[in-house]
Amino acid sequence: MTTPLPAGFQTAAVEAGVKPGTSRLDLALFISEAPCAAAGVFTTNLVCGAPVKVSRERLPRGTARGVVINAGNANACTGEQGIRDAQAMATAVGQAIGCPGEDILVCSTGVIGRLLPIEKIVTAIGVAGEQLSPTTESFDKAARSIMTTDTFPKQVTRELHLAGGSVRITGVCKGAAMIAPNMATMLGVIMTDAKSSPEVLQEALSAAVADSFNCISVDGHESTSDSVILLANGLSHVDCTGGEAKVLFAKAVADVAMELAQLIIKDAEGASHFVTIDVTGCRSREEAFKIAKTVADSALVKTAICGADPNWGRIVSAAGYAGVPLKEEEVSLWVNGIALYESGVPLAFDAAAASKSMRENRDIHIDLRLTHGNGSIRFWTSDLTKEYVALNADYTT
Amino acid sequence: MTTPLPAGFQTAAVEAGVKPGTSRLDLALFISEAPCAAAGVFTTNLVCGAPVKVSRERLPRGTARGVVINAGNANACTGEQGIRDAQAMATAVGQAIGCPGEDILVCSTGVIGRLLPIEKIVTAIGVAGEQLSPTTESFDKAARSIMTTDTFPKQVTRELHLAGGSVRITGVCKGAAMIAPNMATMLGVIMTDAKSSPEVLQEALSAAVADSFNCISVDGHESTSDSVILLANGLSHVDCTGGEAKVLFAKAVADVAMELAQLIIKDAEGASHFVTIDVTGCRSREEAFKIAKTVADSALVKTAICGADPNWGRIVSAAGYAGVPLKEEEVSLWVNGIALYESGVPLAFDAAAASKSMRENRDIHIDLRLTHGNGSIRFWTSDLTKEYVALNADYTT
Repeated sequence: MTTPLPAGFQTAAVEAGVKPGTSRLDLALFISEAPCAAAGVFTTNLVCGAPVKVSRERLPRGTARGVVINAGNANACTGEQGIRDAQAMATAVGQAIGCPGEDILVCSTGVIGRLLPIEKIVTAIGVAGEQLSPTTESFDKAARSIMTTDTFPKQVTRELHLAGGSVRITGVCKGAAMIAPNMATMLGVIMTDAKSSPEVLQEALSAAVADSFNCISVDGHESTSDSVILLANGLSHVDCTGGEAKVLFAKAVADVAMELAQLIIKDAEGASHFVTIDVTGCRSREEAFKIAKTVADSALVKTAICGADPNWGRIVSAAGYAGVPLKEEEVSLWVNGIALYESGVPLAFDAAAASKSMRENRDIHIDLRLTHGNGSIRFWTSDLTKEYVALNADYTT
Repeated sequence: MTTPLPAGFQTAAVEAGVKPGTSRLDLALFISEAPCAAAGVFTTNLVCGAPVKVSRERLPRGTARGVVINAGNANACTGEQGIRDAQAMATAVGQAIGCPGEDILVCSTGVIGRLLPIEKIVTAIGVAGEQLSPTTESFDKAARSIMTTDTFPKQVTRELHLAGGSVRITGVCKGAAMIAPNMATMLGVIMTDAKSSPEVLQEALSAAVADSFNCISVDGHESTSDSVILLANGLSHVDCTGGEAKVLFAKAVADVAMELAQLIIKDAEGASHFVTIDVTGCRSREEAFKIAKTVADSALVKTAICGADPNWGRIVSAAGYAGVPLKEEEVSLWVNGIALYESGVPLAFDAAAASKSMRENRDIHIDLRLTHGNGSIRFWTSDLTKEYVALNADYTT
């Protein structure tokens, strides 16, 4: 599967020696030959990585040239030295491609609390700068180099045909747990040759992330480093700053973000099921979100799904402590289309058939309906397996 | 180990046929020969069991005679029929011992969403009423009969010597996960021969629970059925409603609750570590509580402890998303007495020694210090192991 880049974008990936072991790609550049309008969305964790602090300050921006990402070390909880190291990474990229360091965004993913081997990284950035290429092979290597416990690279592209011409939107992300073992984080870069402004991009990206990356949860542990960056270099010469083009462009960005987010859940650490949670009939989207996230983060719901166990009481009881006012008689539940609980009353159902449906389908659909209003959310999560525990029980030492 | 009951209390345990399999005790009575002042604290889950609804309405109370508990079925999410069944259990006990049904409290623990086999239970209550006994053997059987995935019965007693004489406080509880597989819940009954009033008892119990049962978390899933009931029958003739006796009595109740709560964590499902989390230097107890609970509920913190992995970034990053305003430079962390992070800067430490300390000690101490004020909390949790997943992955079917 090859995923093309938009016009004017190039990538590179090298071995900087940050990830443990040898012969492992761990540093990537995503660069535009022309200045980009750029926007970003970052973790809301108050303990956040130095790259988040540095990149957040630089966005939205009209003159960005690209993103540098290292895997293997999150450069988080690293104090002032961490900030200087993140800035140094950007500066090194600027020197390699000929732009101010401030026009480069930085992301890091990996273990928290260790200083970066910054000299190795700066050297590697110089090498990567020589290898920038617009090919799908190069992009595939870059997508692989930012992986931590991911088992496959995650790339998505859309071609958008507008009155003024065509634009391409291509995204890449990594992540297999909100914080993966030793390493950390969901990171995403979305590139486009559409012509846009930082403000329009920020609006489109914030909306897209709210319904995608912010509606997934593997383990509920909010990363120090989550970052999604959108770069638009305008080289298609198709203006997407207003009118129908703006709407269609925002929709396409949302599609790319949604597909990337789902790829993360499909690759969730140790997971054996892909779980879609629909919560409808709430007073607001916010209340629906709270319920969906509480259900998604319940270890008991997740282990029941792992075991193909239609133990629906765990789902309903999780809704009960989500912080949303509700009464049992206002709640109904379906799992994989099987009605289990209606208006506060348990329904007779074929437990063996329900369990079979959960065991034989990787996709699980939880459909929780309330009677309060029209607020709804769609949320995605994974199950909790012994493999998740094994993956996360022993890393830094 | 035998735990004596206070004066005038009797217990019984029988096989009602609620728990699956044969020859399993699953119904217990805890009865006072004299009327008791009584108080209770219950789950705050909005989806709560019928017994919680029935018992909550009856407390505080000056004329309680005891508690009936069944294991194997939580009688939760069971609609109106569930309420009638819980009332029927109390009525049956009243008939057996000769008191109004309203003077009996009810608790149930087990699978959610199934109607009780109420006829079996009512018959069993009649049998149990004939077997009431003040012996430690009988009390031990009762403590075992309410167990679900617990691996040992949990009983605690204190003898309090006051100016007016001695009083005894004896508690029993069950619980190995906030909701255990198939079954559910933390339940506790604390009995005393002290003389008290419902109001004084409620105050003492609420304070005791706040620092004990409400400061433990196995998996963060709030049960539909959590209940702690305190019964004081006054048969010691020692007045504990005022003065120093009131203070010492409240302290002893808190001690009993604390020891019972810790026994639950020591028996946490599949756990290999007992984790004490101290959070100090906060603006308030509430902020300290939020941070401690967020750390305790993080699957990544829990798996790191399981793996004896001093991956302290997971602890600090959990504090960062607890909803408490903080800056990294206001946070310091010790684990098992080893300084890992000070004022936002990672410290050099001997990772192998830290890991050894975590591997060789069942007790883990997380000491998280902020610089905001004097608010603090002590919280207990367990680690997350493959055994927890196995225990919870396949039950109802």
